[in-house]
This record gives sequence, structure tokens and C-alpha cells, in this order.
Amino acid sequence: MKIAVIGMGNVGSILGRRWAEAGHEVTFGVREKSDTKTQAEAKAMKASIGTVAEAAAKAQVVVLAVPWKAVPEALAAAGNLSGKVLVDCTNPLTQDLSGLEIGTTTSAAEEVAKKAKGAKVVKIFNTTGAPNMANPKYGAVSLPMLYAGDDADAKKVAAQLAKDVGFEPVDVGPLTAARLLEPMALIWITLAIRQKWGTDFAFNLIKRPGK
Amino acid sequence: MKIAVIGMGNVGSILGRRWAEAGHEVTFGVREKSDTKTQAEAKAMKASIGTVAEAAAKAQVVVLAVPWKAVPEALAAAGNLSGKVLVDCTNPLTQDLSGLEIGTTTSAAEEVAKKAKGAKVVKIFNTTGAPNMANPKYGAVSLPMLYAGDDADAKKVAAQLAKDVGFEPVDVGPLTAARLLEPMALIWITLAIRQKWGTDFAFNLIKRPGK
Repeated sequence: MKIAVIGMGNVGSILGRRWAEAGHEVTFGVREKSDTKTQAEAKAMKASIGTVAEAAAKAQVVVLAVPWKAVPEALAAAGNLSGKVLVDCTNPLTQDLSGLEIGTTTSAAEEVAKKAKGAKVVKIFNTTGAPNMANPKYGAVSLPMLYAGDDADAKKVAAQLAKDVGFEPVDVGPLTAARLLEPMALIWITLAIRQKWGTDFAFNLIKRPGK
Repeated sequence: MKIAVIGMGNVGSILGRRWAEAGHEVTFGVREKSDTKTQAEAKAMKASIGTVAEAAAKAQVVVLAVPWKAVPEALAAAGNLSGKVLVDCTNPLTQDLSGLEIGTTTSAAEEVAKKAKGAKVVKIFNTTGAPNMANPKYGAVSLPMLYAGDDADAKKVAAQLAKDVGFEPVDVGPLTAARLLEPMALIWITLAIRQKWGTDFAFNLIKRPGK
């Protein structure tokens, strides 16, 4: 396929290189196509470079791999994308990577904490289905149980309760991280019900072999 | 520990039973403690039952395992929880399980689709780090790549591009599911950076052995 990759950061470079290796015709859309370093990088990947508009115009698939702040400019530069496949790799991260700039506003956990004044709220046991809580051992694997909270002692208690059930507890940070854990729960539910996977599956966290 | 489990649905029952098995003193907080079926269920688990207020009053840990709609009533019934650990298992799911009632409003993908009129937007390549895109094989495991979009043909193209990189593509539904995938990306980023896991880890999706 003819693929335009807008953005030559970590994600764009790696995807473009791998797709070129797989035989696709990859063009990076960049701000300064006369930049010799950029040209050399693209050449090393057996890819072309062009302006964002040039890359997008000839592509069937346009890949948006720029920082969130650069999205409006990149899309404006790309011009008319009607009918094209637009692969969106962006995340609207805040600059300190602590949250999302758009899309999230609160969480059940934060609302619970507002109502239960003084309680040490920990978000946990929400990201997977009850059948996995009944048996969180998948062979030799203890499923991870992600949790978030603001009180260190309460988090220790909750983590121990997860271990008592057979989970491997995983700390994801302050209670605002419930804004991440509740949507993750819905991914599991969506796969289980809408995508008809049933309930005998789970998210696991794995380390790269040898690391 | 003395644990009050508010709610005897799937999640509350299973957690309460397992904690009782692990040696904790579990009391289920219920609306009708005189219900004989509920009493029998609790007894079979070696747990007690009481009103929500009774269960909460004597507990060090209060576990909120009720449907989202029942949270205000449950917390009101529980009374003062100041200083207690409050384990929040709730998810603010819409009744049809298609979304979250609170907490999410939009996504980068939906904003991109608004700007790129007519483009067939697919959310993909956002839930894991660039090092995993450079090498999505963890030994024999091909990492999953979750994606969402509204155009079936565009999704097929995106799924193939994920395969071309070495991922196992996983369809999570319509483009609004980007509201789930973008927070999930931030879980990975949070573990990698704030929790100092580095980048040699990934979410995997696994099936229960024998299923």
C-alpha cells in the first residue's frame, strides 16, 4: 500500500521503517523536506520524504504520528483526506504525562471519595470480570490487579487483599488514575460481551524475555 | 482484617468468599439482612451478614461492590467511613455497557475525525510504546494491538498494517472506543515512567488454559 506517515518521531519512524521492510511504499510527510538529516534517515529506511501535503496526496493510508499539540497543523497541512484511511496513533497527553488533555474529567472513584469524606479510597477490583476474580490463576500466571489511590497505607491493604485473592497487585498511582482503570474495565467488558470473547480471558502484563 | 463487603452481586460474593477463605472476618452489608437465602449464602461462605451500617461500622476495610446507580444509597447507608480503607470496585457503566456514564467525554480520535472530514479514521498504534512497536514479539508471544473505528474496510487495512509490524490485531469496536484506548495508553506510560518499569513490558491478552 501507499502509506504516508506524518511525523518522524519514535512512533512514526519505527512504524514507517517496519512497513517499508514489509514491502509497503512509505513516504514520510515532514515540515522541511530539504533537511539532509531527515533525507538520510528516510533513505536508510527505504522510504521517501515529502511535504505533508505531498505525502498525503498520493497515499491510500495516512498515519498521524505527531504529538497531540501538532495535530491541528498536521491535519491542515495534509489537506483533503476524504475517503482515505486515517490511522490515528495520537494520545492527548498533558505535557507532564500525568493525564489526558481531553476526554477524561472524573471517575467513579473520585466521586466516591467526594461522598465518603475522610475515607481512604483505593480503586481496585474493577478492571476484570468476576470469573477472573473467582480464579485469577491462568496456569502459572497470576493475573495482574491494577489499583490506584492517594493513601499509601490504604494502598498496601488493598494490594494485600488482591494477593489474598490470588492476583499480582500493580500500583498505577494516585486516585485520579481511576480515570484510566475504569475505561480499561470497559475494554474487558467490550471484548467479553460485544466482541463475544466470553469471560475466559484477561489482560496480563509481561516483561520482554531476557529483560 | 475485618472487611465489610457492600453488595452481594457477582463481584462482592466472589471477593467476600475468597477473603473469608483467606482468614479474614467478612461481613456482607445488605439491604435485607433477614432474607433467609442471603443468610444461607453468607453462612456457606463462612461470612456474616448485617445491615450496610452494621457491616461498615465494625470494619477496617469497606468494599464497595454495588452497581454504579446504587452507589449513593450504599454510601449513605454506610454512614461515616472516615479513616477506613474504602475499596472501590465500581465502574460507572451505562446500562447497555457501551460506555461510561461519567468520566469520559471525547477522544483524540473523535477530534481528529471531526477535523479530517470524510477520512476513515482508525485508532490504533497508541496503546503501547515505540520500543514495543520496534519489536512486538516477546518470545513466542505476538503482542496484541487494540484498535477501534467506524469503517469496516478501513479497520481491515489497519489490522493488516498491525500484522505487518508483528502485532496481533484486536478489534475493540467503534471509534468511540478510542475513549478507552487512550486512557489505556496512559496506563502503559504511567507504569513505564512514573512507576519506573522502563519500556520492556507490555499488556498481553491471554486465554484461560484449557478454554
